[in-house]
Amino acid sequence: KFYQGEALAINPEKRTVTVGKAVLDRFKREHRKLDLSVLGEKFTLPYDALVVGVGAVPNTFGIPGVDENTFFLKEARDGKLIRGRIHDCFEAASYPMEDEDKASVDARKALLTFCVVGGGPTGCEFAVLFLAELTDFINQDVGRAYPNAFSGSTHLWPRVILLEASGELLGAFDTSLRSYALRKLHKSGNCEVRLGAAVERVEPGVVVLKGGEKIRCGLVVWSTGVGPRKFVSEGMKWATRANGRIEVDDRLQLVDPEAKGRIFAIGDCAHVTGSIYPAIAQVAEQQGNYLAKALNTKGIPD
Amino acid sequence: KFYQGEALAINPEKRTVTVGKAVLDRFKREHRKLDLSVLGEKFTLPYDALVVGVGAVPNTFGIPGVDENTFFLKEARDGKLIRGRIHDCFEAASYPMEDEDKASVDARKALLTFCVVGGGPTGCEFAVLFLAELTDFINQDVGRAYPNAFSGSTHLWPRVILLEASGELLGAFDTSLRSYALRKLHKSGNCEVRLGAAVERVEPGVVVLKGGEKIRCGLVVWSTGVGPRKFVSEGMKWATRANGRIEVDDRLQLVDPEAKGRIFAIGDCAHVTGSIYPAIAQVAEQQGNYLAKALNTKGIPD
Repeated sequence: KFYQGEALAINPEKRTVTVGKAVLDRFKREHRKLDLSVLGEKFTLPYDALVVGVGAVPNTFGIPGVDENTFFLKEARDGKLIRGRIHDCFEAASYPMEDEDKASVDARKALLTFCVVGGGPTGCEFAVLFLAELTDFINQDVGRAYPNAFSGSTHLWPRVILLEASGELLGAFDTSLRSYALRKLHKSGNCEVRLGAAVERVEPGVVVLKGGEKIRCGLVVWSTGVGPRKFVSEGMKWATRANGRIEVDDRLQLVDPEAKGRIFAIGDCAHVTGSIYPAIAQVAEQQGNYLAKALNTKGIPD
Repeated sequence: KFYQGEALAINPEKRTVTVGKAVLDRFKREHRKLDLSVLGEKFTLPYDALVVGVGAVPNTFGIPGVDENTFFLKEARDGKLIRGRIHDCFEAASYPMEDEDKASVDARKALLTFCVVGGGPTGCEFAVLFLAELTDFINQDVGRAYPNAFSGSTHLWPRVILLEASGELLGAFDTSLRSYALRKLHKSGNCEVRLGAAVERVEPGVVVLKGGEKIRCGLVVWSTGVGPRKFVSEGMKWATRANGRIEVDDRLQLVDPEAKGRIFAIGDCAHVTGSIYPAIAQVAEQQGNYLAKALNTKGIPD
């Protein structure tokens, strides 16, 4: 059986999962509602064995305004949203304005300033690709599609600002790689790398740094690694943790005795005891393949 | 130049169009807002010649609840929305419920009842295709994907109810075609055709007929023809009308002298004097081709 729903909590004693009805949420949230009160909000499913593979979510470190005002870079959908926003920024920057004064020129510049927060591998890769794509886009399409976007003065726009809270890009990597990345980004001309720049909060169209500096921009891409989903941090509070993730043994079973040997975890939400596997798709896929085979051939281990 | 915006009004005296900034609306409406106050809400564009080709919108006849609670059948996007809703209805009807009583069986039946309002060509075509597709879907996928959707009693579900306010389907067509359509729909078994059934209002999940009868359903498809867009009905109030559309001559120029010979209209929003062209894509496309050629070769006629 397949149910489309949101897992809310696990009861390892009774071996049940409480599931919220995803479709009802959609019916309520969307245009064209249905009255579905009789159907109830959630239901409970029993299990013999349970595999938790809920992945992770972008880590906001609880910084105010990040959820509301930035774009993440995690799911395929995020890429489309970012592309849409970039086009919208060019479109907005090219609209005629009633009074073409300094304020409106500044607004155009702000719209064409794109911030990337996080100088890890994802942030750096994105900044580099972003600049390359932007350069192609500008040379090939912008002059024709958005001639007004650059009116008055803006040969330095669009530009990319890469903000990293620590003193170094690519903290986990070798020194030579770090300095190569920094050189590469500087050479591109339109990228400003700001090290030791910690974000205090994000407002609509403004990144506020610790110390009070405000950077106006049309887009903030947030790529500072991943943290646990609500289901893991709240619905599985009882589970043993390692590095903030659910700790599993080398058979991917939860090490916590409360799981009664019936619960497994794979992917970004899981940490294999003593391993250094990074939270990436390749690891998750291999774990999934291994576990499916193990459960199908050997059954549920005690 | 290309601007992505919403035309709000025409000033034929000054030869200008007032345009709302579409992108700003999106920035405001969506998640990840930008503060764009300095950019202003709208702008004015001058024209030498103006072509109005804004199409039409579904005609709701001002019936309460139609905009909020029904699905239209006009743009490609509508098809995707309807497909999504049908899947959601099956999903919702298949969820386990805490108490499996008569009320929950009725709720499942309601979710799998699909209403089509309007017995014109679109409504009839949709009902027939809908039933054919639903039958395939049910035979091939539903038993496997949603076995619970039919628990207890529901061999008659899903069913389609076609509501037509007049006494006949396909009012504009030949008698033999009308009775053929009616026979065809009846023969399908799961379609109930209700003639003389006028809709008074639509509530979430309920169609209320004149006379007070209430039909609970998971989906209402509204296909009762098209009416003018707001830009046409309010922004061009001054223009001469025929059949509720903007009247143009055989060169597609507005017949209204206020247009000063500089304004043209094509497609669903336009009516060519003395013609009986229906409001369909083929007519709009040919008008577009004709006008582009005429303006490019002969210039703007006085």
